[in-house]
Amino acid sequence: MTDEQYMRLAIREAEIAFEKDEVPIGAILVLNNTIIARSHNQVELLNDSTAHAEILSLTTAFNALGSKYLPDATLYVTVEPCLMCSGALYWSKIGKLVFGAPDEKNSYRKYTGDVNPFHPKTIVIGGVLQDECALLMKTFFKNKR
Amino acid sequence: MTDEQYMRLAIREAEIAFEKDEVPIGAILVLNNTIIARSHNQVELLNDSTAHAEILSLTTAFNALGSKYLPDATLYVTVEPCLMCSGALYWSKIGKLVFGAPDEKNSYRKYTGDVNPFHPKTIVIGGVLQDECALLMKTFFKNKR
Repeated sequence: MTDEQYMRLAIREAEIAFEKDEVPIGAILVLNNTIIARSHNQVELLNDSTAHAEILSLTTAFNALGSKYLPDATLYVTVEPCLMCSGALYWSKIGKLVFGAPDEKNSYRKYTGDVNPFHPKTIVIGGVLQDECALLMKTFFKNKR
Repeated sequence: MTDEQYMRLAIREAEIAFEKDEVPIGAILVLNNTIIARSHNQVELLNDSTAHAEILSLTTAFNALGSKYLPDATLYVTVEPCLMCSGALYWSKIGKLVFGAPDEKNSYRKYTGDVNPFHPKTIVIGGVLQDECALLMKTFFKNKR
């Protein structure tokens, strides 16, 4: 499967979040062409402001694989990670990060500027199905106003 | 109880981590003079590279209090938080963060420079029982070599 195809599955997760009135961000974690974890934001459900899609997929993968590092895995997430999730991805030594829409408000870049917060070996690709990923977020926050 | 007294309890948690061959960092989360959570690094036990003391105390507190924000709570942690934990503390809107030893290698400051990653209302105090907190870390990593 291609990055776009995996991102479509992450978008489906984001849509589930949207339907549950959670911030519509979804993630898929893939290892050797196998989906190890699917997740969406569950901040409201879990009453946990750190229950972001990325964190939930990472912890599921650590448990499922019995490994605390994921150098051969790829995380697909519909929105650019925040500072916390970037730090978690650093610790995971994730092999590849693919995100959809940039996030001007909460992106790690707002804090780190030109400093790369990820593991030096992590490949980072942004902008995959960016418009669809961004539209979900825009619609969600427009409805909240 | 004073900040130093709470930090002593966090150091006790770090010592438990040390005994279990985990990176010796401990945390205590306090609300209204009541200890809501005690934790230490459990990266090895949980096979989870994100199982830092701060994260474990935060998630325990979210669960215990049924609240996703902790504006009136104080987190005591023996070592300066990493980027991930700083981001988690941001989302938690923690009222006050008290840390012991600075961490040149993994501190959030390495990435954020002069940008404050915490919630604007979070009070940050560093250096409480700094030498004791640092000694545990130094001894741990010296033994590893």
